[in-house]
Amino acid sequence: MLDIRIETTTTPKELPKADNPLKFGTIFTDHMFVMNYETGKGWHDARIVPYQPISLEPSAMVFHYGQEMFEGLKAYKAEDGRVLLFRPDKNIERANKTNRRICIPEIPDEDFLQALKAIVKMDEAWIPTKQGTSLYIRPFIIATDPFLGVRPADTYLFIIILSPVGAYYPEGLNPVKIWIEDEYVRAVKGGIGEAKTGGNYVASLKSQVKAHEEGYSQVLWLDGVERKYIEEVGAMNIFFKINGTIVTPKLNGSILPGVTRDSVINLCKTWGLPVEERRVSIDEIYEAHKSGTLEEVFGTGTAAVISPVGQLRWEDHIMKVKDGGIGEYSQKFYDTITGIQLGRLEDKFNWTVEVK
Amino acid sequence: MLDIRIETTTTPKELPKADNPLKFGTIFTDHMFVMNYETGKGWHDARIVPYQPISLEPSAMVFHYGQEMFEGLKAYKAEDGRVLLFRPDKNIERANKTNRRICIPEIPDEDFLQALKAIVKMDEAWIPTKQGTSLYIRPFIIATDPFLGVRPADTYLFIIILSPVGAYYPEGLNPVKIWIEDEYVRAVKGGIGEAKTGGNYVASLKSQVKAHEEGYSQVLWLDGVERKYIEEVGAMNIFFKINGTIVTPKLNGSILPGVTRDSVINLCKTWGLPVEERRVSIDEIYEAHKSGTLEEVFGTGTAAVISPVGQLRWEDHIMKVKDGGIGEYSQKFYDTITGIQLGRLEDKFNWTVEVK
Ligand SMILES: Cc1ncc(COP(=O)(O)O)c(C=O)c1O
Ligand SMILES: Cc1ncc(COP(=O)(O)O)c(C=O)c1O
Repeated sequence: MLDIRIETTTTPKELPKADNPLKFGTIFTDHMFVMNYETGKGWHDARIVPYQPISLEPSAMVFHYGQEMFEGLKAYKAEDGRVLLFRPDKNIERANKTNRRICIPEIPDEDFLQALKAIVKMDEAWIPTKQGTSLYIRPFIIATDPFLGVRPADTYLFIIILSPVGAYYPEGLNPVKIWIEDEYVRAVKGGIGEAKTGGNYVASLKSQVKAHEEGYSQVLWLDGVERKYIEEVGAMNIFFKINGTIVTPKLNGSILPGVTRDSVINLCKTWGLPVEERRVSIDEIYEAHKSGTLEEVFGTGTAAVISPVGQLRWEDHIMKVKDGGIGEYSQKFYDTITGIQLGRLEDKFNWTVEVK
Repeated sequence: MLDIRIETTTTPKELPKADNPLKFGTIFTDHMFVMNYETGKGWHDARIVPYQPISLEPSAMVFHYGQEMFEGLKAYKAEDGRVLLFRPDKNIERANKTNRRICIPEIPDEDFLQALKAIVKMDEAWIPTKQGTSLYIRPFIIATDPFLGVRPADTYLFIIILSPVGAYYPEGLNPVKIWIEDEYVRAVKGGIGEAKTGGNYVASLKSQVKAHEEGYSQVLWLDGVERKYIEEVGAMNIFFKINGTIVTPKLNGSILPGVTRDSVINLCKTWGLPVEERRVSIDEIYEAHKSGTLEEVFGTGTAAVISPVGQLRWEDHIMKVKDGGIGEYSQKFYDTITGIQLGRLEDKFNWTVEVK
């Protein structure tokens, strides 16, 4: 059990108005959770303090050697007023897996969960209630030693900030256009691809800019070795429905193990829908599209939950999926997962965790 | 020409004593150079201010998505009192190459050089003069937008800090033991390996910790695709002398283009010493060692200039080089480059730039 010291803000901000579209990741709540690490002392000084700037030495290791990790999950206000987190245990498990990969000291699972609940409870009033909105939770850890040598740091800050976010699709599910990248690579086996750390995102920027210029909203990555197996989208995992079977790339070390991905796979199993985690080549997708068996494509991620894909572009080939519309299963996964998140549907899997 | 505003410190620190061993990257001078970027406004507000902490919003992009870059070079005090930079044009060129790769706005070469000279001049008194010491210069750029979306930032800070550093080898050149990594991968073609950005260094930590535990001081990386071609060391490029020829991996997109590497290649050419930039497999090195033609191995980098390698470990094979001693050419490259850096030898290449 953490002993969390609480310092309440004396200058609370105004809550966003109900009609505020809440652009993702721009508005932050009144407080943040902070905890320090120091070699020899371990994680200590857990506290909730007013949301405020961080002051670091210019030589702080995070500015130079990228030793930083983050997570992303959401809190929802159910119709009956309960505050629900969606599968926080999975984010905590992934956080510590990231920590191990990049030599950041782990945070005990129960302390991590306690911190999440405490900060969400503190700023509960900030959870928006309009259809599709939620409170985005961003835990992150940064290396703070004022030292220019390359080695794991001895001091860290663990911080949780909260941001009320709007509906990803204000007018309901909206298919996206995806660019299949064949020049740049995001990650490779043996690297840090399965860790949620800045280095993977900075590697994606150039390709993302190129895709945007061509009118595509996201990039789909191919593997870094053979450049033919499908990995994942910029901030989503990817699923295909081919000839009645749901197919997604298996976790191979270079893909982020998404929580939403895992939820979709679990739903398939309960529904008796055939689901395969395996290698998927771009040629297979191209052939399936040509022969008319590529029935649906969708991305999965915390931000949008399910993103139907209406179009894929690979080299000079443009593949329209479902005529650019929304697939039946994309809609069904979306409705089911958001239904559970909002406490509207029965939570058979015990995925939601109430913040009391 | 930048218009650099100067704010002198009112609380100067004590200069390190002459016998201070100056542990790398731990002591910083009285001032730092700072410049801001904002989309629409460009780079602006160039200033030299007292060395001080940086204050950023917890949502600052650098903490989450790793959009950060750095460079490393040195200023030397020549025996005749001149202050010399070593090939700053190469660092500036590489900085802007990094910037392009990770979508950071470029800094005009001449402004970058002006900033380097101005801050070194400002804290000239901090340049140590003892044999082997120098002033390490660390320019870096960080993305500062308070925004959690993944995209190139609209605001950046460019900062230059200075650190007096001791002789890398206080008792003269000292051979190191190197671990050849066959499990983890640092970078892959199509990725960010040739950029000087945090993501490449965080990816190296786990392997480095393992190598240290086994008694090796650095890691030698193999390529991420075939896992057999030699890339570079943690913070150095690598050279082999095989049967009279100097061989180094060619720049293939996943290796940092080292300034010291380029200097060694240039010296070989002037000296009429055969030099090859090409693919080098670990099998070739292993065979050369077995047949007795692996005559020297050394790393090149700003910190140590030349690091003779006395031992390589690959899987279960331990390869001793030069009986763990220093090769003739390792010594010659070291003496020549440091001689030019300190203004002791004639600078035929015009590598040094005087700070006036
Ligand atoms: C690279 C990447 N892949 C996949 C995902 C989806 O993971 P999750 O479903 O846990 O949000 C994300 C975003 O969270 C991501 O950043
Ligand atoms: C990964 C890496 N390779 C090589 C080098 C050597 O480059 P340079 O000779 O420019 O210092 C460095 C260090 O600077 C480095 O970090």
